[in-house]
Amino acid sequence: MQAWKEYQEKNKDRFLDELLELLRIPSVSAKSEHKADMIRCAEAFKQRLLEAGADKVEIYPTAGHPIVYGEKIVDPSKPTVLVYGHYDVQPPEPLELWKSGPFEPVIVDGKIFARGSCDDKGQVYMHVKALETLVKTNTLGSNIKFCIEGEEEVGSPNLGKFVTEHKELLKADCILISDSAMISLDTPSLDTGLRGLSYIEVEVTGPNRDLHSGVYGGAVANPITILAKMIASLHDENNHITIPGFYDDVLVATPEERALMAQAPFDEEAYKQDLGVKELWGEKGFTTNERTGIRPTLELNGIWGGYTGEGAKTVLPSKAFAKISARLVPNQQSDKITEKLIKHLESIAPPYVTVKAALHHGGEPYVTPIDSKAYRAAAKAIEATFGKQPIPVRGGGSIPICALFEKELGIKIVLMGFGLDSDNLHSPNEKFDLANYYKGIETIPYFHQYFASL
Amino acid sequence: MQAWKEYQEKNKDRFLDELLELLRIPSVSAKSEHKADMIRCAEAFKQRLLEAGADKVEIYPTAGHPIVYGEKIVDPSKPTVLVYGHYDVQPPEPLELWKSGPFEPVIVDGKIFARGSCDDKGQVYMHVKALETLVKTNTLGSNIKFCIEGEEEVGSPNLGKFVTEHKELLKADCILISDSAMISLDTPSLDTGLRGLSYIEVEVTGPNRDLHSGVYGGAVANPITILAKMIASLHDENNHITIPGFYDDVLVATPEERALMAQAPFDEEAYKQDLGVKELWGEKGFTTNERTGIRPTLELNGIWGGYTGEGAKTVLPSKAFAKISARLVPNQQSDKITEKLIKHLESIAPPYVTVKAALHHGGEPYVTPIDSKAYRAAAKAIEATFGKQPIPVRGGGSIPICALFEKELGIKIVLMGFGLDSDNLHSPNEKFDLANYYKGIETIPYFHQYFASL
Repeated sequence: MQAWKEYQEKNKDRFLDELLELLRIPSVSAKSEHKADMIRCAEAFKQRLLEAGADKVEIYPTAGHPIVYGEKIVDPSKPTVLVYGHYDVQPPEPLELWKSGPFEPVIVDGKIFARGSCDDKGQVYMHVKALETLVKTNTLGSNIKFCIEGEEEVGSPNLGKFVTEHKELLKADCILISDSAMISLDTPSLDTGLRGLSYIEVEVTGPNRDLHSGVYGGAVANPITILAKMIASLHDENNHITIPGFYDDVLVATPEERALMAQAPFDEEAYKQDLGVKELWGEKGFTTNERTGIRPTLELNGIWGGYTGEGAKTVLPSKAFAKISARLVPNQQSDKITEKLIKHLESIAPPYVTVKAALHHGGEPYVTPIDSKAYRAAAKAIEATFGKQPIPVRGGGSIPICALFEKELGIKIVLMGFGLDSDNLHSPNEKFDLANYYKGIETIPYFHQYFASL
Repeated sequence: MQAWKEYQEKNKDRFLDELLELLRIPSVSAKSEHKADMIRCAEAFKQRLLEAGADKVEIYPTAGHPIVYGEKIVDPSKPTVLVYGHYDVQPPEPLELWKSGPFEPVIVDGKIFARGSCDDKGQVYMHVKALETLVKTNTLGSNIKFCIEGEEEVGSPNLGKFVTEHKELLKADCILISDSAMISLDTPSLDTGLRGLSYIEVEVTGPNRDLHSGVYGGAVANPITILAKMIASLHDENNHITIPGFYDDVLVATPEERALMAQAPFDEEAYKQDLGVKELWGEKGFTTNERTGIRPTLELNGIWGGYTGEGAKTVLPSKAFAKISARLVPNQQSDKITEKLIKHLESIAPPYVTVKAALHHGGEPYVTPIDSKAYRAAAKAIEATFGKQPIPVRGGGSIPICALFEKELGIKIVLMGFGLDSDNLHSPNEKFDLANYYKGIETIPYFHQYFASL
């Protein structure tokens, strides 16, 4: 629509400056030292929602980090869209690999480099600017609610309670989330599913104290060696996961579904080159897109034990640790998998050590239908601004709260992400292309228009 | 001797205070941030040697940390003993496991708790106080030289050059080292050998950057998983080391030697209880004393990769690292083993990753004869103050410089350690029993007396 385009073109630079300001707040939810930054970030979002034209914005405290709720109600009889997003970010470490400060955003080659630029401050802020566009051009034809939490990156431990206790407040006709990626600006896509998650931490204890590796080495089990043997046993020679019952509930894709997936463009050489690897790795019998989309996985997210500093220390450590997470696919349940994972790790612990494993957080897998009104509105909106229909794809990541939203609020979710897989989410040098940011701001008003009229 | 005893009794408290002052200097050779502390520590030892009666003390700079040389020459025609020790210490980490500051020595239950209390500041300082005793009571009948280096804990990279270039300065009839343990004050022992060392670091690189484990997990090799599989393969089901040719040069102990070793007192239940483990671990077919004394071993000294901070981060890391060291027994050569270890790690790397392995430092194994004049003087000295003959035992640790000393200076080494295996060397809460410290100061003058007269 011409009025939107003009308004956005005129305010382009401000839209960017405002985002950069939000990116300067180190809202790392995993680290308690950032508690004050989290509050500062929530308050910044509140202020921005009010400036964009929201009628009412509230910060709801939780047992963890606060939730920002905002709304612009045009007419209660009209359709309502609930926008979900998160203002928290992943820890920026390892810091030495960043080319610029993770919380000192810079624009290089048309890309915003900063932690949270894409995941998810940049993407949720597109919605704030879309609201502003609709309000300031007097074209808002539906009601919009915002639920922006501060604990997505730590498994949303307090959002469930908030949703359950505020069903009326959050009542809507669909949920719109931009916290995922599309294939490219040339090949727009919409996520039709996300994987679930079971994230645990395991601690292996050998001797009751660190020992001199010369005096005791060879006579006492080394917890690093034992942990390595345990980890090594979790995938067999075909890279199948060996945890008993792990695949029991997996909804196996039909040959038709797999044939459809195989139509998505995928250039293996370009993929390998981008990642700098000579060969890909994965579960035998599945393609790369299947491995990241429809198959569950088990990944080591961290490992540590013994001396990890500069130089050499001849220590036989008392303890070794690992962070391990499984991505789950439809029909798998996070708590069942977590239990199997923990039990299995404890059961394979040899008698020389003690093993403790505990849940960090989990979330259920989610699949969204492609015939819902919300999906169709999203597809139409993308067609309006990209000039082509989006391809439906299964996302490999997880937004643990999706399944809960659907269950508690009884409404469908549409995942309209504007990031790219190459945006270095959770990695050093996270970025968000300016073109994608502006394309998101341009597309979202169409979604609201179509959703209200379909 | 009565005069020694009286002198030592009178100066007991000062002997302790002086040691505590040395222990307050954080002389961590592995960390470049302690460069100034290293110099301060070398200067403190110089000052103490002069106060104890040395004629001449020099600090020799090296490419790394300086070496303290001191001497008290009574009569060049008399026998000369070269005392070797080191003023550097292991890094104190993990700091949170220390009950008191590693560089804030405290006396609890008759034990000095501090990094370096036993390894080796406390033990080398016994020799300084023994010199003082001999000088101040006018009873020194031999010449004593001191060579106290600052790089033992990082593999003595610069001592070899110093020894080669100062053969005349270091000329002596035997080398006396207190940098090891005895069984107990009730069961004194003398080390007749030390193991060699090959210490390497390995880096496994998967993708060229940290990735989102949901987006890429399952499709790209995780370097932690690969490193774990590599480590797991280094010991077979009998805990034999699988590196091709690793055992080729091992001097196998004869049944007679093993029978002699088996006579050393060993209480397996007490050993397990002290370490807090339910079962011991080790190479099949060998006893615990054999595993730590006459067999080579391979230990993981450190491992790290991915996210190791508080909370959870769903990352598939680019890199994983490990520090690995082998202890070597007589006839094995450090450089040969290092090469085999590095080659093996590179050869088992799957094509999904790149593996780089490099030497930290190495040292040769060492065996000392029990019929040398020096060994007999040490045994007699121990008998004089302990009232019983020492048991000869093989130490599991390494003092890489021993083999070089013998080769370059052509003289025998005697390893008269006064520590205990339970002194938490290289671990949090390192300690040295006051009784052992004073017993060392009491015994060393007898060594000099017997060595000069035997």
